[in-house]
Amino acid sequence: MFDKIFIEKKEDIERVITRYLPKEEGYPKTVIEAMNYSVLVGGKRIRPMLLRETYALFGGESLIIEPYLAAIEFIHSYSLVHDDLPALDNDELRRGNLTTHIKFGHAMGILAGDALLNYSYEILSSAYELSPMYIDRCAKANKYISKKAGIYGMIGGQVVDIEAVGKTLDIESIEYIHMNKTSALIQAAMCAGAILAGATVEELNVVEEAANKIGLAFQIQDDILDIVGDEDKLGKAINSDAKNQKTTYVTIKGIEESRKDVETLTQSALDNLKALGYTNDFLFALIEKLINRIN
Amino acid sequence: MFDKIFIEKKEDIERVITRYLPKEEGYPKTVIEAMNYSVLVGGKRIRPMLLRETYALFGGESLIIEPYLAAIEFIHSYSLVHDDLPALDNDELRRGNLTTHIKFGHAMGILAGDALLNYSYEILSSAYELSPMYIDRCAKANKYISKKAGIYGMIGGQVVDIEAVGKTLDIESIEYIHMNKTSALIQAAMCAGAILAGATVEELNVVEEAANKIGLAFQIQDDILDIVGDEDKLGKAINSDAKNQKTTYVTIKGIEESRKDVETLTQSALDNLKALGYTNDFLFALIEKLINRIN
Repeated sequence: MFDKIFIEKKEDIERVITRYLPKEEGYPKTVIEAMNYSVLVGGKRIRPMLLRETYALFGGESLIIEPYLAAIEFIHSYSLVHDDLPALDNDELRRGNLTTHIKFGHAMGILAGDALLNYSYEILSSAYELSPMYIDRCAKANKYISKKAGIYGMIGGQVVDIEAVGKTLDIESIEYIHMNKTSALIQAAMCAGAILAGATVEELNVVEEAANKIGLAFQIQDDILDIVGDEDKLGKAINSDAKNQKTTYVTIKGIEESRKDVETLTQSALDNLKALGYTNDFLFALIEKLINRIN
Repeated sequence: MFDKIFIEKKEDIERVITRYLPKEEGYPKTVIEAMNYSVLVGGKRIRPMLLRETYALFGGESLIIEPYLAAIEFIHSYSLVHDDLPALDNDELRRGNLTTHIKFGHAMGILAGDALLNYSYEILSSAYELSPMYIDRCAKANKYISKKAGIYGMIGGQVVDIEAVGKTLDIESIEYIHMNKTSALIQAAMCAGAILAGATVEELNVVEEAANKIGLAFQIQDDILDIVGDEDKLGKAINSDAKNQKTTYVTIKGIEESRKDVETLTQSALDNLKALGYTNDFLFALIEKLINRIN
């Protein structure tokens, strides 16, 4: 039952984000093809789904949410495109497909990433026009998303991750990387949903903390799958962390302890969210499913 | 006299944008050093200066302008950092200094550019908090800037410029590149100033057209200086367009015709702006000076 609803919701999100993609025409056609390829090549659409479901948790019902679904996914896509570049992770495959710079060339990989990031902000800065009465909420959501995407969020995590290659890290540094490289954008998604639905500051703090735990659990699960996962299901090679000489949560804590932490973090996040007193069964089920995922 | 005021105004802009730079501390310290280096390494600060002076032309007097000075310069800086990368223009020097990726490494060059772009939007999306009464104007200015920085503006021009290497271009393609790679951000600067000062839609259209001409004249002058300029004053090698097999405005129209076009475009832009009926002698002098510049 969950799986059927999940697929329906995922397809609906993909319809929305596809509508927000730029048309492949005009002088800059090549970069637009590269942008759209990067977004449409696949993905679980977890961030827009968490955004929409958190919005619903707080009773949000407006179409104002749609540009946010697209923008949060495009920010995620840009980060993957630049991560895959030769100077960074140097990956040729993602989700079983050629990475953007392999398919469109190195220069276009850089520019498509830039273009996706900028386009996200074009979408965010126009969003309020759908419902000018929400201009304040949109302004707050845009500010929150932009902070979590930058040096005090996702990019910060990415920088420390890149600098960590070949070094031995302590658990604090690993947690910094996970909390920023992964949790920050989960926080952006869930808190933007809460802000747009009019959540109070206290509620927002709860969502932020829960999203942090979800992101951490999500990333630890990623590290586990990099060791014990199925390459076909993952759509990428396993053991990439070992190959890239990366210390991960799992190399420090071991698989069993890491699995327990994923479980504990997820339960704690769920407890926090449920204590708010609102209900969205699909959201709660989605969060539980994230830790049992195999890709 | 003009030069003295110009230097004072430039120094004041540099004080403002320096205040908006992130502190070089914490886990992501390296990327912040690379961001700040990229901004502080120099530049004429033309875009923030045009922004502030256009704001003044329309009677703007609020401090709301300050985050915009920083954001527009940071967007410009990010575009230079990514332009200089090996996969794009592959430049090792800019303004007589090492380019960011040469000084901080290739990965950090990519990430510092990403970080500067994102940080610009962090600044833009917080700007309204300085004066919440201007939330509508800020929203409009942010939307305008984001559009002009993206695929329908600066990135669009950059993409076509990169694809043009080694090809023979017609004058329409050259003008598309200039209008987008250069004029778009000049438009973003001047129109953001006008929007923030409360200019009407008709006035905004005039500023947009004038800024387009100023950007075109500015870029043609750049192409001229790439042939006849003084390397020491420019802080970079000349003849880079020939080296990169780039067709430029000058290779099609010749130096004399190009010089005339710079003059005509500039006069036309000035006439448009003066016809609005407002006065800012420094702005008008600045626009005239741009065509006589030697760096």
